[in-house]
Amino acid sequence: MSSDNDRNDHYETAMAISTRESISIFGGDLSRDFIGEVSFGAYAFRLIMLREPSPGEQRLFEAVLVALADHGFTPTAIAARMTYLSAPDAIQGAIAAGILGGGSRFLGVSEDTGRILSETLAGLVELPSNANGWDQVAVQMVSNLKERKSAIPGLGHHLHKDGDPRVPKLFEVAREAGTFGPHLSLFEAMGRVAPQVLGKNLPLNGAGCCGAALAELGIPQPLLRGVVLLARCAGLLGHIADEIRTPVAQSIFAHVENHAVSTSNSTDL
Amino acid sequence: MSSDNDRNDHYETAMAISTRESISIFGGDLSRDFIGEVSFGAYAFRLIMLREPSPGEQRLFEAVLVALADHGFTPTAIAARMTYLSAPDAIQGAIAAGILGGGSRFLGVSEDTGRILSETLAGLVELPSNANGWDQVAVQMVSNLKERKSAIPGLGHHLHKDGDPRVPKLFEVAREAGTFGPHLSLFEAMGRVAPQVLGKNLPLNGAGCCGAALAELGIPQPLLRGVVLLARCAGLLGHIADEIRTPVAQSIFAHVENHAVSTSNSTDL
Amino acid sequence: MSSDNDRNDHYETAMAISTRESISIFGGDLSRDFIGEVSFGAYAFRLIMLREPSPGEQRLFEAVLVALADHGFTPTAIAARMTYLSAPDAIQGAIAAGILGGGSRFLGVSEDTGRILSETLAGLVELPSNANGWDQVAVQMVSNLKERKSAIPGLGHHLHKDGDPRVPKLFEVAREAGTFGPHLSLFEAMGRVAPQVLGKNLPLNGAGCCGAALAELGIPQPLLRGVVLLARCAGLLGHIADEIRTPVAQSIFAHVENHAVSTSNSTDL
Amino acid sequence: MSSDNDRNDHYETAMAISTRESISIFGGDLSRDFIGEVSFGAYAFRLIMLREPSPGEQRLFEAVLVALADHGFTPTAIAARMTYLSAPDAIQGAIAAGILGGGSRFLGVSEDTGRILSETLAGLVELPSNANGWDQVAVQMVSNLKERKSAIPGLGHHLHKDGDPRVPKLFEVAREAGTFGPHLSLFEAMGRVAPQVLGKNLPLNGAGCCGAALAELGIPQPLLRGVVLLARCAGLLGHIADEIRTPVAQSIFAHVENHAVSTSNSTDL
Repeated sequence: MSSDNDRNDHYETAMAISTRESISIFGGDLSRDFIGEVSFGAYAFRLIMLREPSPGEQRLFEAVLVALADHGFTPTAIAARMTYLSAPDAIQGAIAAGILGGGSRFLGVSEDTGRILSETLAGLVELPSNANGWDQVAVQMVSNLKERKSAIPGLGHHLHKDGDPRVPKLFEVAREAGTFGPHLSLFEAMGRVAPQVLGKNLPLNGAGCCGAALAELGIPQPLLRGVVLLARCAGLLGHIADEIRTPVAQSIFAHVENHAVSTSNSTDL
Repeated sequence: MSSDNDRNDHYETAMAISTRESISIFGGDLSRDFIGEVSFGAYAFRLIMLREPSPGEQRLFEAVLVALADHGFTPTAIAARMTYLSAPDAIQGAIAAGILGGGSRFLGVSEDTGRILSETLAGLVELPSNANGWDQVAVQMVSNLKERKSAIPGLGHHLHKDGDPRVPKLFEVAREAGTFGPHLSLFEAMGRVAPQVLGKNLPLNGAGCCGAALAELGIPQPLLRGVVLLARCAGLLGHIADEIRTPVAQSIFAHVENHAVSTSNSTDL
Repeated sequence: MSSDNDRNDHYETAMAISTRESISIFGGDLSRDFIGEVSFGAYAFRLIMLREPSPGEQRLFEAVLVALADHGFTPTAIAARMTYLSAPDAIQGAIAAGILGGGSRFLGVSEDTGRILSETLAGLVELPSNANGWDQVAVQMVSNLKERKSAIPGLGHHLHKDGDPRVPKLFEVAREAGTFGPHLSLFEAMGRVAPQVLGKNLPLNGAGCCGAALAELGIPQPLLRGVVLLARCAGLLGHIADEIRTPVAQSIFAHVENHAVSTSNSTDL
Repeated sequence: MSSDNDRNDHYETAMAISTRESISIFGGDLSRDFIGEVSFGAYAFRLIMLREPSPGEQRLFEAVLVALADHGFTPTAIAARMTYLSAPDAIQGAIAAGILGGGSRFLGVSEDTGRILSETLAGLVELPSNANGWDQVAVQMVSNLKERKSAIPGLGHHLHKDGDPRVPKLFEVAREAGTFGPHLSLFEAMGRVAPQVLGKNLPLNGAGCCGAALAELGIPQPLLRGVVLLARCAGLLGHIADEIRTPVAQSIFAHVENHAVSTSNSTDL
């Protein structure tokens, strides 16, 4: 409540600035340069990175967003549908509830994979020039994680036990787009060496591959999860549209309520 | 808690279904048909509408998403930045906080405009064939709203008092894309007749124009707000990236805290 | 972006104001007058109403908060648990997800009941002096709603078909506390006359009774839902504690995922 | 999508279970034993801990909730008000937006303090019997944190530089209530020894003291932040009531918008 003169006499931003006549952004004009001129994916890239993606970067970025948008009845989709059931008048709440599931457990895989790849690469004096070289780096990385008893992000999927079908396609897109660089090379190598180092078959998963691809595109570490959530936002919208057409939330609720038992009555305890 | 056999033995969905080997969606295969093959905007359209957009529909849809993504320091952007300041470890919370501002007041304009246009069109026996005909429908629509003392959505902007620069560009994109149909025709006519009917200059605004365009594309009424929020999600991500690079939330907080006065002490009361 | 001198040189508030030495609120001192001196329920009442509750008001207010705190596996509790499953590192997200279910459908009953009672009372020239008089007002109110084909808030419960056990207890508490006024009298009368007016047995429900009690206490209409959410916040915390001790979210998720069928494959369509 | 018989044929819970006639919780009956019989604070304690608080525990628990409920224009209060400005029709969104600020930076102090105290106590073979003994433990604890260059939670406040007025009152309440045990003893000792160990004056803060008190009451570590959020929920409700009576969000928004400058134009860069 002190009335000292705070010197916050302006707030800097690289986002849009509106005047009476125009809306400026990225040194250009929103209407002239962006609306109808660039795809939503390319614009989202620019909002985060403050630079235009190359055509190859744009292709990989949009591929990742498509890959992450929806995985069916995930916990986040169920949370969004439950919230829509309770509050159909406020669709923003249902979307927000779904987005709030973007934490460490499920959606965090992309972020964790991106981080471990970036950290490993940052520690290399020189990048390997062939698959064999990448395999050696990957063996070292996975061995270190194993030794520290850390979870190894990007490996294994509760359903796709023989390999996540998104991974080879994302590799293919990145190669075609000319954006298959060190992060994806190391991630691919991790998939090759993991069975041997860990002594069990844990194929690469799609969420991890998306994290590797986003790290390749230079998305800053603290924003990787945000990109996943942008993708997921489209999927949540799909689930809400689906819930309006073919409601299931009431049935899920009824199932749970009908199968509730008091802990103290449980024969399992 | 009853244990009757609930008949909810399955939950139908048009969203993705995963098996051990593949992820199916829209009667196709996620990896083969969608990742790297369609833009994120086109895929989002499909998640909502369950059909492929035409190239013209896709262009208009992505143009609307770009137009709505960011408008600088809106209340939703401020809410997201305040939340990021408090909880930088949970970026999902900052995005969700921003999305929760998607209510009746600011982001609701798109939805309200779409609804009033759709309702008016649904009441017409025959669509007008020229601008003059659309003007007559618009005069009737605006007069009715004025008589009922309803707010007229899509008109006026607190800053762009001589016209919102996004509107002519969106019209141009829709015309080029072959998607300038009855909703946009009626919206455009509303802009022409409003000054005369209302006796004051209230130009068309961009949020209303986006609502008209989304209604044109057939986005169901209850999901219009959701599409606005998908666009806004990218803008919020931009603001969080901006906050990380050039923090302002702490200064805004300090400004407000430093200028707080107790209601009872206020000389204004 | 204009730099005109905005006259917002202060922000008035009745909430706490901190200086270097003290925290003032409600014309008193937070530490001296409130911490350890008043219950949390009484303090919450004061934060909303800016006045001290009488002992009777406090008893009814806390009774309502207890009555609304938890109803087992509601959609909001399921949403919170799903979110906790996905993002256990951000408990604020799980609580927020649960709170977002506070919309028109389930938690809105309290608000709707409070409003219809307040509106009816506002239209009376004189308050009835006995049960018979209240019955006449209630018959009129329910008949009007029935005629307008409006839903009648506060009646019926999907489970407690012979009467919600919270209702008689809340009536008893209000009578003992000396806070059984016109809102509760009209609500009670509604329960007496409804079967006859509607031609079916729809007993009073607890959510409606809580709304009647909160309206009785003078909680402003737009804040009724907020009080319900404060109560629910405690229940959500209970569910998250429960989920930590005895996890069920993973099983609910698995149940839903295992019973997903593609809409197009469904034999029901 | 497999249709194997999942064995999740029931979901255990210690929360409320409803039957047609009654609502059971904690081995009792919600209406008979809790509504109107216990305070909201005591009931919230029980929802988390599954046991009745002693009168002393209840007094300290409610004191902490009151102490944490509101601190004026915090970032979380600003986020809630911004969201209410944008979406006044969905008060649940405004409350949720405020709760989402419950992260590591501001509200996390309580949690962090509780953890460091609990960890230190867990490492002691025997509890000290006097202030001198506690001082030795505190010196060791603070020195360790200093050596590891960790932040020391519970110390310092950006405004209350000579001591947070809530701390002595919370100590007094705990002493009166007979709940001043090892956590608060160690916290108090930390305040005594910190200036000497750290070489600067950093008094104990209220958020840390509340964390110490909640840890003393046995609130499990992962739920400490949740209790803070329950308290804050009441404060957010107060801010929304305040915003309805005396709006400031529009002025804050206008201030920020009017002082936005494009990063690239900034003379600071």
